[in-house]
Amino acid sequence: MEIIRPYLLFLGDAPDQLAAKTAAGVVDWRRDWCVGQMRLPGCGADVGLPDMDVAEAVRQGAKTFVIGVVNAGGRLPEHWIDAIVEAIGRGLDVASGMHVRLASFQRVAEAAHAHGRKLFDLRASTERFATGNGEKRPGRRVLTVGTDCSVGKKYAALALEAEMRDRGLDAEFRATGQTGVLIAGRGVAIDAVVADFIAGAAEWLSPAAAPGHWDVVEGQGSLFHPSFAGVTLGLLHGAQPDAFVVCHEPTRKTMRNVSHALPSIAQVIEATVSAGRLTNPDIRCVGVAINTSALPEAEARATLEKAAAAHGVPASDPLRFGMATIVDRLLEEFPAPR
Amino acid sequence: MEIIRPYLLFLGDAPDQLAAKTAAGVVDWRRDWCVGQMRLPGCGADVGLPDMDVAEAVRQGAKTFVIGVVNAGGRLPEHWIDAIVEAIGRGLDVASGMHVRLASFQRVAEAAHAHGRKLFDLRASTERFATGNGEKRPGRRVLTVGTDCSVGKKYAALALEAEMRDRGLDAEFRATGQTGVLIAGRGVAIDAVVADFIAGAAEWLSPAAAPGHWDVVEGQGSLFHPSFAGVTLGLLHGAQPDAFVVCHEPTRKTMRNVSHALPSIAQVIEATVSAGRLTNPDIRCVGVAINTSALPEAEARATLEKAAAAHGVPASDPLRFGMATIVDRLLEEFPAPR
Repeated sequence: MEIIRPYLLFLGDAPDQLAAKTAAGVVDWRRDWCVGQMRLPGCGADVGLPDMDVAEAVRQGAKTFVIGVVNAGGRLPEHWIDAIVEAIGRGLDVASGMHVRLASFQRVAEAAHAHGRKLFDLRASTERFATGNGEKRPGRRVLTVGTDCSVGKKYAALALEAEMRDRGLDAEFRATGQTGVLIAGRGVAIDAVVADFIAGAAEWLSPAAAPGHWDVVEGQGSLFHPSFAGVTLGLLHGAQPDAFVVCHEPTRKTMRNVSHALPSIAQVIEATVSAGRLTNPDIRCVGVAINTSALPEAEARATLEKAAAAHGVPASDPLRFGMATIVDRLLEEFPAPR
Repeated sequence: MEIIRPYLLFLGDAPDQLAAKTAAGVVDWRRDWCVGQMRLPGCGADVGLPDMDVAEAVRQGAKTFVIGVVNAGGRLPEHWIDAIVEAIGRGLDVASGMHVRLASFQRVAEAAHAHGRKLFDLRASTERFATGNGEKRPGRRVLTVGTDCSVGKKYAALALEAEMRDRGLDAEFRATGQTGVLIAGRGVAIDAVVADFIAGAAEWLSPAAAPGHWDVVEGQGSLFHPSFAGVTLGLLHGAQPDAFVVCHEPTRKTMRNVSHALPSIAQVIEATVSAGRLTNPDIRCVGVAINTSALPEAEARATLEKAAAAHGVPASDPLRFGMATIVDRLLEEFPAPR
């Protein structure tokens, strides 16, 4: 799926900032792709874009109406449907990360059909994949992995891409989750793929490339998460990364939504190397990314130094201190081809 | 899904015995559930049941018309559709392990609707699952795992169930693939589940049970198969087995359909224990099942003795020498509750 930009980010009447997480992620990384935000009365979220309605967004060139809000249960209030239908009527495609398909709302389906607009269900891939073949592909790949879900794998990957591009490297973020797909404009929500095709979808997502090209693949889940480790392993095998960065959130007490303890960073490195060797015998860890936002700066720096010493790779907080040290290590380990 | 028996096994015009693998599996393990086989002119397969047409099968009490043939590409010749529609018209449900859904053939869908019959697409689960929670459930579980796909995991699990039942144990085969579902009458094709729900589907398949109950869970794929390891890992985490049996096919040169080398049995034991500990810290190997059909008896016995000595657990060929030694070990390791 290739989502046409620029976007109008629809926040509906999201009760708070957290509910607009998807929209906020797009603004953090692709501010230039967004003409504005559209909020309904009662909206408690604000992603810092100019407020506008559909008509104004169309005047400013918007091509896709992006539902930037998480909606528990997948039910759409009637006034959201009105807004979606209006957007379609004015010529916009619609992209949604809800579990429920856009076309399952009859008025939305009819409007899209009548106006020849596309409906992108980011969580329900319609792409058909082959099963993975495990053959090593040319080009380089770096994958973010995690001690848990929601520990910053997407942000670490995007920060890696940004730092690598700043240095003139040919690097491309490869999205594997709904927000990532909006940020990349393409990709696949890997957890929505049929189980048989996880690795195959990852192979499709990161195809053969020039020797100097880097795909920066967004990781999902954790090899130690009892709900999602199968997704993580299939993605690891299909992505066949040369390098990986372990992401960690030090205030997390248990794995997300379950009662299991978090693995150590060392366990994640060991398990990733052990499993990843199946499709890339040279796989190695090149860095640790720690979300230190809960810590004062001195403590944050001490935490990162300790992690770097313990694991023998650079450690950084991607948003606070950048990815320069980790990209340095990546290029030491994998020098550009001459 | 619960498939009503007895079955009429439809072999169509399968060119050879291998194409009727699904039907043969059902006959091997559930002969009593089958009233007969239905073959069309040109059929090169025979699973040893009385030949009959739909009318005769209905007279003998058949409830479900089972398409027992693999059909590459999922296209159905017109004369198969005639037979399916006739079966529906005479009151039979239809079960199919084809990738393509039965209802996607318009005449089949219309007939099922008109006659109120059920269409079971064994490879396309419509059951909705929760994500796995990783919580330890009461009851005992044994899982078959493999060095590769198609190395006898289903047959080993069924042989385990048979041996355990012969000893009066409360044991139940839990099917995770299409043929297994026909043999159990229920289950879930785990590789057809959306990736997010692999572990959750395995938890659903093998729910909490009495302390003395054993679920014998059919394994899928291999932790070392680059196409399917994610499925294998999610199933392992969701099944949370106390015990596992490693299945191996010694004549296999590379992993099925890819060019990767087979792992050793020792590697499979180590990886299964290492990953399985996440949801069952006490997981252990209780046996090795080797398909020795290519070997003369003396050589087969020597191979099994060598494997038993190497891995410290009983080794057997389930079909040739039975599962008694492995069940002995299982009960030594996990004595019945008093």
